[in-house]
Amino acid sequence: MSLNAVLSRIDADIDTSTDRLKDLLRIQSISTDPAYKAQCRAAAEWLVAQLTELGAEASIRETPGHPMVVGHTNGTGRHVLFYGHYDVQPVDPLHLWARDPFDPAIEDGADGKVIRGRGASDDKGQLMTFVEACRAWKAERGDLPNVTFLFEGEEESGSPSLVPFLKDNTEELKADIALICDTGLFAEDTPAIVTMLRGLVGEEITVHGPSKDLHSGLYGGVSMNPIRVLTRILGGLHDDEGRVQVPHFYDAVPELPEQLRAQWEALGFDAHRFLEGVGLKSPAGERDRTALEQLWSRPTAEINGIWGGYTGAGFKTVLPAEAHAKVSFRLVGQQNPHEIREHFRKWVEAQLPEDCTVEFHAHGASPASQMAIGDPAFESARRALSDEWPHDAAYVGGGGSIPIAGYFKTHLEMDSMLIGFGKDDDQIHSPNEKYDMKSFHRGIRSWARILDAIG
Amino acid sequence: MSLNAVLSRIDADIDTSTDRLKDLLRIQSISTDPAYKAQCRAAAEWLVAQLTELGAEASIRETPGHPMVVGHTNGTGRHVLFYGHYDVQPVDPLHLWARDPFDPAIEDGADGKVIRGRGASDDKGQLMTFVEACRAWKAERGDLPNVTFLFEGEEESGSPSLVPFLKDNTEELKADIALICDTGLFAEDTPAIVTMLRGLVGEEITVHGPSKDLHSGLYGGVSMNPIRVLTRILGGLHDDEGRVQVPHFYDAVPELPEQLRAQWEALGFDAHRFLEGVGLKSPAGERDRTALEQLWSRPTAEINGIWGGYTGAGFKTVLPAEAHAKVSFRLVGQQNPHEIREHFRKWVEAQLPEDCTVEFHAHGASPASQMAIGDPAFESARRALSDEWPHDAAYVGGGGSIPIAGYFKTHLEMDSMLIGFGKDDDQIHSPNEKYDMKSFHRGIRSWARILDAIG
Repeated sequence: MSLNAVLSRIDADIDTSTDRLKDLLRIQSISTDPAYKAQCRAAAEWLVAQLTELGAEASIRETPGHPMVVGHTNGTGRHVLFYGHYDVQPVDPLHLWARDPFDPAIEDGADGKVIRGRGASDDKGQLMTFVEACRAWKAERGDLPNVTFLFEGEEESGSPSLVPFLKDNTEELKADIALICDTGLFAEDTPAIVTMLRGLVGEEITVHGPSKDLHSGLYGGVSMNPIRVLTRILGGLHDDEGRVQVPHFYDAVPELPEQLRAQWEALGFDAHRFLEGVGLKSPAGERDRTALEQLWSRPTAEINGIWGGYTGAGFKTVLPAEAHAKVSFRLVGQQNPHEIREHFRKWVEAQLPEDCTVEFHAHGASPASQMAIGDPAFESARRALSDEWPHDAAYVGGGGSIPIAGYFKTHLEMDSMLIGFGKDDDQIHSPNEKYDMKSFHRGIRSWARILDAIG
Repeated sequence: MSLNAVLSRIDADIDTSTDRLKDLLRIQSISTDPAYKAQCRAAAEWLVAQLTELGAEASIRETPGHPMVVGHTNGTGRHVLFYGHYDVQPVDPLHLWARDPFDPAIEDGADGKVIRGRGASDDKGQLMTFVEACRAWKAERGDLPNVTFLFEGEEESGSPSLVPFLKDNTEELKADIALICDTGLFAEDTPAIVTMLRGLVGEEITVHGPSKDLHSGLYGGVSMNPIRVLTRILGGLHDDEGRVQVPHFYDAVPELPEQLRAQWEALGFDAHRFLEGVGLKSPAGERDRTALEQLWSRPTAEINGIWGGYTGAGFKTVLPAEAHAKVSFRLVGQQNPHEIREHFRKWVEAQLPEDCTVEFHAHGASPASQMAIGDPAFESARRALSDEWPHDAAYVGGGGSIPIAGYFKTHLEMDSMLIGFGKDDDQIHSPNEKYDMKSFHRGIRSWARILDAIG
């Protein structure tokens, strides 16, 4: 039976598969920082070479930002579009890394071997599970499944070029269904298919006060301090119950269907164990919601960065001319990202004292999305995953934002299946990011099964 | 009349005096940043050379931090201790400087020529007004007044070595009265003698949350965010009336004596013009206090710096493990710096949610001080200043903290006269710091007159 041959080949080649992943992890493709532009292109070129080696027709496709990689096989059967991203998050604070983030290595982890390095889990390791599955498939069967590959290089910086690219290449990119590998297992040994995803709005705000930095001895007390204004406003973003205070924020937030609530309760999610893993004890969101609701079906407001005044060694009694913050909102249901941004801006402006002005800068906006699990591909994939892993696969919500699923629906009229093998302790976006070798190995095998099942 | 000879000599030599000031301004003596340690020593050595050239016995005196400079003349008459500091503030943000902060130049200012560069006004230019007055005095009279010079290199970083140094050298440093040149004119053409000074407490706080940086997609909503906690707490530092909310903060704050209030009103201080100069309109302090009270006789709480999370280019949806702020308090009356620090720490700790801890780091503490204007030297100096400047000199309050005056009182049982020639638009502690050439020139002449009057 040829699926088994493919699976055996995957097992036999796992070391060379790992070496190829290491090659990709060595490329410093940080998309959010212009200093790494050339490295982003290098990662794209490396992927083109991989796909070409597989016998796909692959090429770099220019965008105003970092390039896309598109590849086509001449396979038959159900046509799938596979999406992954080759860009990674910045690595700061660098001093918290135990090793060079771009010098990957196999290490012992809590649940066996892991591969450590920036992007190991988000998203280079995940992306490579699919590429390696195709490689083993080709080696055993001589052909390839009917796949269009789409690799993006701007996912970590809001995907500015993605929608225009989808619009310009609708015919070329349209497939029967999309496979997106940028999510995680539900639990150790329990794979998951994400059926709902939160949206995201990113916003940068700058509060301006005096025309220049001032000495707090000469001006302190009498002059408005922008940091005081910024902390006053952002300090009121949540009430004591954890509810976001921006007017109309909850207008388009639906209640969780009773049936889904029951299914989630059945998952037996242990919030305390989940938080313990990061040194915390209690869910910090809306007090009247379960931890899973706070993570999957409730919107959030977070301050992701704040800075102003003197932040160096020692002390400086300065009243700064400006103060800054980066704020993001996770969206659910029908919350409109642009309306939420407007509500937030109005809320901030309404609280500005005389002598202060505010400047806003938008950093991406995507709505929440809901998958059409009626498509039989979902059940086929769920069974294929359940065959590979110790426990059956679950339909779950996703706290993160993968706007791409919404874009595929809107611009390519295509549903998406979000399947990934990351784990909560992968430390993505943090120092010492890793990917379990079990995730990598079983991930490759999972894709072979899924391609076999839905092809 | 030999005072006139000295004054004429000062006028004749003003260009060479300015060249010497430029030499001092080129030395990058930033005391708060360890990277400039050698430059601080270079500035001290330069001053030793200057005093030696005058015929004073001068030397470098080691401390655990940057060195002191001490010099003695063998002059007769009333013995004065002159204090100034050779260290300067950091220069960031560097991109806001119109020229290299350490390449001083004479430029056209709002009120005539200015000398521009870091330290031009705070405090190298001021310190040199006295040194140059002594130089002209020596040139015309052959001798020097009875002066002990004390130059410090840690004033901008909280003077950690000063008190121990005063204690170890009480006999050597004690004089009849101290002259401190680190303050400003009251107004264009109106010199001032500061008779009350605010104290200062500096505090750095770090709020710890999760054990590592987290992805707001995976953890957002359910995990406590230290920036949210820090902004919530510091956002409540003042109420809508501008009053500081730390319990017991105002316990030891005296009401302004009616007589002083009347005298201050007579000064005709124009708050709006003062604020206009820095792009502001309205006093931001306690609503029920005049602007001069907010500046001179009322305590303040200021956030001088804040940082946490991602502050680079682009966006990063991170929940940081910690958030930081630098906070300072200007003190008046009998407010005890150490008690204020404790009240603040208790107030912060009381507001910490579960899952957060806080760390405090002290950055200096000094009480407010009140001069003994009964000493006849005050009236002699006031008359001497009134002779030099278009308008009579005024007794004023000082918003800044010059703890040295308090230290002289406590450890050398010596009163201080705070006389300086800086201006509100000198941009000390800010980019493009300058010192008016009129302040420098008339400042030198003022010291010659004062030395003649009180000697």
